[in-house]
Amino acid sequence: MATLVLKFGGTSVANPERIQNAAKKVKAELDLGHKIVVVVSAMSGVTNQLVEYVRTITPSYDPSEYDVVVASGEQVTSGLMALALQQLDVKARSYQGWQLPFYSSDKHEKARIDEIGTDLMKDCFKQNITPVIPGFQGVTRPSKDGGNRITTLGRGGSDTSAVALAAALKADRCDIYTDVNGIYTSDPRLVQKAKKINRIAYEEMLELASLGSKVLQTRSVELAMNYKVPVQVLSTFETTVGSDLPGTFLIDEDAMMEKQMVTGLAHSRDEARITLTNVEDKPGMLARIFGPLAEANINVDMIVQAASDDGKTVDVTFTVPRADIVRATEALTNNKQTIAYKELQTNKDVVKISVVGVGMRSYAGVGQMMFKALADKGINIQVVSTSEIKISVLIEEAYTELALRTLHTTYQLDAA
Amino acid sequence: MATLVLKFGGTSVANPERIQNAAKKVKAELDLGHKIVVVVSAMSGVTNQLVEYVRTITPSYDPSEYDVVVASGEQVTSGLMALALQQLDVKARSYQGWQLPFYSSDKHEKARIDEIGTDLMKDCFKQNITPVIPGFQGVTRPSKDGGNRITTLGRGGSDTSAVALAAALKADRCDIYTDVNGIYTSDPRLVQKAKKINRIAYEEMLELASLGSKVLQTRSVELAMNYKVPVQVLSTFETTVGSDLPGTFLIDEDAMMEKQMVTGLAHSRDEARITLTNVEDKPGMLARIFGPLAEANINVDMIVQAASDDGKTVDVTFTVPRADIVRATEALTNNKQTIAYKELQTNKDVVKISVVGVGMRSYAGVGQMMFKALADKGINIQVVSTSEIKISVLIEEAYTELALRTLHTTYQLDAA
Repeated sequence: MATLVLKFGGTSVANPERIQNAAKKVKAELDLGHKIVVVVSAMSGVTNQLVEYVRTITPSYDPSEYDVVVASGEQVTSGLMALALQQLDVKARSYQGWQLPFYSSDKHEKARIDEIGTDLMKDCFKQNITPVIPGFQGVTRPSKDGGNRITTLGRGGSDTSAVALAAALKADRCDIYTDVNGIYTSDPRLVQKAKKINRIAYEEMLELASLGSKVLQTRSVELAMNYKVPVQVLSTFETTVGSDLPGTFLIDEDAMMEKQMVTGLAHSRDEARITLTNVEDKPGMLARIFGPLAEANINVDMIVQAASDDGKTVDVTFTVPRADIVRATEALTNNKQTIAYKELQTNKDVVKISVVGVGMRSYAGVGQMMFKALADKGINIQVVSTSEIKISVLIEEAYTELALRTLHTTYQLDAA
Repeated sequence: MATLVLKFGGTSVANPERIQNAAKKVKAELDLGHKIVVVVSAMSGVTNQLVEYVRTITPSYDPSEYDVVVASGEQVTSGLMALALQQLDVKARSYQGWQLPFYSSDKHEKARIDEIGTDLMKDCFKQNITPVIPGFQGVTRPSKDGGNRITTLGRGGSDTSAVALAAALKADRCDIYTDVNGIYTSDPRLVQKAKKINRIAYEEMLELASLGSKVLQTRSVELAMNYKVPVQVLSTFETTVGSDLPGTFLIDEDAMMEKQMVTGLAHSRDEARITLTNVEDKPGMLARIFGPLAEANINVDMIVQAASDDGKTVDVTFTVPRADIVRATEALTNNKQTIAYKELQTNKDVVKISVVGVGMRSYAGVGQMMFKALADKGINIQVVSTSEIKISVLIEEAYTELALRTLHTTYQLDAA
């Protein structure tokens, strides 16, 4: 008999029928004798609608009232899920974030989890009641000057809620039910030979999540890694339930028997490239470039510096989120004199392709294989960045599919 | 400087633009120096949608989870209203029922108000903050075995919330903003000469509300009467604000200088008639008829008993809500032997027309005027029922408009 946290995402609870379907998954686990806590997202589309209401009223909103508005979506599904479970003769009830309590910081709109009260959930277990918790929601601690306010954990925060609840309850597993049946070696829509990964290390998942795989929120993977919560990603729309292990399991690197060189590929079209030409190469030059961008709250990702044509100055190339390209250009243009560059070139037709694998630590030549495979297809690499377990390259966007398929074969991910 | 509670109904907060419009009303009152508490309904249509979700999942729902689901509608508008006020440079914040707290009984889905904490609202006044309270919501008191659960006050409960808050705060006035600019002498869609009533006694309003006028929830009027809360009904869609008194004022009967014989007419198509013929006229007969209906939770309204053709037995005629006619027929048919009637006749083509006025207490012949006026138009009266300040008749539905217009003229309500 295990303690499980089962989390259902927005598409899994998109309407009453799907909530009933999700409730059947919960019932199947209960029938196996497990103790279950259910975590639910808002119905898909609802949070976007609520955010739009807020933005229509005021673009510069008070985040504490934003939280009051958007936290309601999960409240609705928590009540509906409790009802759907009751309809299956499961004793169930919802607890809102303020009822548990699910304490968070007061940094509204992206609050950090502080402490989760587990007494009420443990009481439920004793009485054979299945608690249903709305994801995404928290509450600030009561204080002399107020507190006790609704918070939210940031978009996609329900994954984080589920993992945090699993950690607090020392649960045996946290199952994240979504609309895909696991993590894939690459995006199956682009790479037909993409395969489901059965086991992936937390660190690999963390890289994949931050490099463009949208299945899990990065923060939830960090939390799972820190608290060593066994997380499984699986589909609500398949007939099996989590205890039959049909999805992708996130585990500790040490628990992986055999480490492949590369576990998976990620790609992100969310990038834009900026090049500043003929920058004078003297101390503090990079600080003068990236200072204005940091002040404008723009994240800079890949950076490369190369000698210019004239042999005396350098060209600095880097990437920023595509949505920030206009603001980035403004910030740099406003500081053209201090930075002292000749030209500012931008390019939005780029994609970042990454290969990820803890095996890289023990295999040599992973990067060389990548550069050669892409060169053989005539794909030019604009920027490279690496970490211990990943290599990312920036290439022309038109080559996205070709590059992914080529690398998928190169790293022997095609094999059945 | 007065303390006012301003309540905005579903059509007044139906979308972000309307919420902004309602916020302007609030701002105008604040500019006059008043202290304001804002109460909001859910956006129109939202509560129905949420109820439908619940009913789709299970027709026999747990009312405590129903409350979790449906209370969310008001939470959304309370946050949006606070944001709209902030956008107008008004310091504002929302307080949910559980934050205030707005304590109620644990009779979920139709909870009774228990006690309202006013400290937080009074603190707001001191800091020039306008509190925004979601209507309809309450919370049960924390207790050893739980409590602290979300409740709702029953459909239309936001009016009741507003009046209760006004009573708790000893407010100078409670303005109910809606989509009509007051209470009318009759339904303006049916009676062109219907006029807005400037002042109406609580008791009259109570009769009108329970007799079919849908502007105010009956319970809110009872509460206003009991606590002598001055209530004004007015339109959100007119340019004036409440302090210019453009709507209908609910006041104490004693405060009415001159009492008209009849203040207004109401009609309800929500009725169906049942006649049981040739019932043996012996002790306990009515109990045998109405017992099964009470057990089936069906409200019986008008009752009349008349001698049958045979001179020995009686015919019993009464009305039930139209929606309950099938269930009522079943309950009676199942008890045909005990009740001992000959035939059961039903008729759904009926309407209840009522004339209401505290002046009836001092004027004689109000009923006679009604009966004669209807007879002159060839309208047959099927059932009559009276109270101290109202007379209701059941007539054929096709005569609704004719009857209302005739009585409107008869009681001199046409005069400008």
